[in-house]
Amino acid sequence: MANENCCSGCSRPDLPWSGRGTSLPISGCRFTLYPMTDKFIDIILGALDKTDTSCVWSETDALSTVYRGKLPYVADAVKALFVNSYREGVHMAIEGQFSKGCPGDISGDSKLDITCAPPNAEGLKGKHFPVHAKFALYPMGSGDYIDDIAKVWYMAEEAGLHPTTIHYATRLEGDVQDVFDYLEKVCAFMEASENVSHYIVHFTMNCNSPTVE
Amino acid sequence: MANENCCSGCSRPDLPWSGRGTSLPISGCRFTLYPMTDKFIDIILGALDKTDTSCVWSETDALSTVYRGKLPYVADAVKALFVNSYREGVHMAIEGQFSKGCPGDISGDSKLDITCAPPNAEGLKGKHFPVHAKFALYPMGSGDYIDDIAKVWYMAEEAGLHPTTIHYATRLEGDVQDVFDYLEKVCAFMEASENVSHYIVHFTMNCNSPTVE
Repeated sequence: MANENCCSGCSRPDLPWSGRGTSLPISGCRFTLYPMTDKFIDIILGALDKTDTSCVWSETDALSTVYRGKLPYVADAVKALFVNSYREGVHMAIEGQFSKGCPGDISGDSKLDITCAPPNAEGLKGKHFPVHAKFALYPMGSGDYIDDIAKVWYMAEEAGLHPTTIHYATRLEGDVQDVFDYLEKVCAFMEASENVSHYIVHFTMNCNSPTVE
Repeated sequence: MANENCCSGCSRPDLPWSGRGTSLPISGCRFTLYPMTDKFIDIILGALDKTDTSCVWSETDALSTVYRGKLPYVADAVKALFVNSYREGVHMAIEGQFSKGCPGDISGDSKLDITCAPPNAEGLKGKHFPVHAKFALYPMGSGDYIDDIAKVWYMAEEAGLHPTTIHYATRLEGDVQDVFDYLEKVCAFMEASENVSHYIVHFTMNCNSPTVE
């Protein structure tokens, strides 16, 4: 295990450590929606009604929801849920983590036999609003990926998201779909990298913030 | 930089990489409160009024707040802000990341000359409510810290927080103060570890969730 970076989430010390999770083709996102309104339940349930989650494996508990499957479907479902929960003037946030390749991951709890187009993409066309966002990328494993991290920064500039460094994260500004598309591209880039066996992208995004910067 | 694990948050490719951040004595927490009610601004401002943040360096933007300084003061202020924002029956969450030792960290934006007792501890006595929580610990650097990760799990069991593994995180259940005290202990344990030069603990916590598990 020396030099095999990992996280705590997957490492129950009472179970044997398989290490095979790094080769599983399962991307995932664990996330939570936070509508800052008394009608938060209506908003979340309403967004779920409008969102096609048939292409991901899903589980919800009292704290968060996790989607697992192929990256394009996971990213499509998370983006759709947030966009579909938008209400004019309502301050709302989403925070979550995209990840793939945890050595302790298991082969179940996924959908991997799907090949259709991401089912929400068509319905999201024309739905746009500005968001504040931040993210932190943790490439794990023992590779030399400093060039990959630099590339991720330049990808944000190229996407017009105006990246800035803040303590412990990178800030982004832009349209909600552009930010989600960028996060998906970062995940795809990490998944294609020869230097990274396991990555985590923690992100937070909000709209209609009352705070003036 | 080979085998020097790091995150993206601190790595502007247009700035020289100092690497000296790992030896800075600055702990930090970037976090956001999410009261799921129309009165979210009142709740956040009211909690700030009740919370002594004089022992940490603080900065707020439209997305989150960051506290930096010595770990006991940072942990004290974050815990106090969440506990002080509690309203009976109101569903509320906090998410954030504790961190120390990022190679790209800078020596400013901190308070390091403070030696008093954490200023909110006394006022928090007797304030208790149950929370759901989850966290993921990312120990960075090239050390062999699998034993440290196992120890962190056992610390949660010893604290009575009933840790369980979920995809991409560890779930905890317990009293709000016990969960915050545990997270602080995890940070202190990482900061004392010879195997870890840089760590991040991402956490989410909520109270009064309408979801029955």
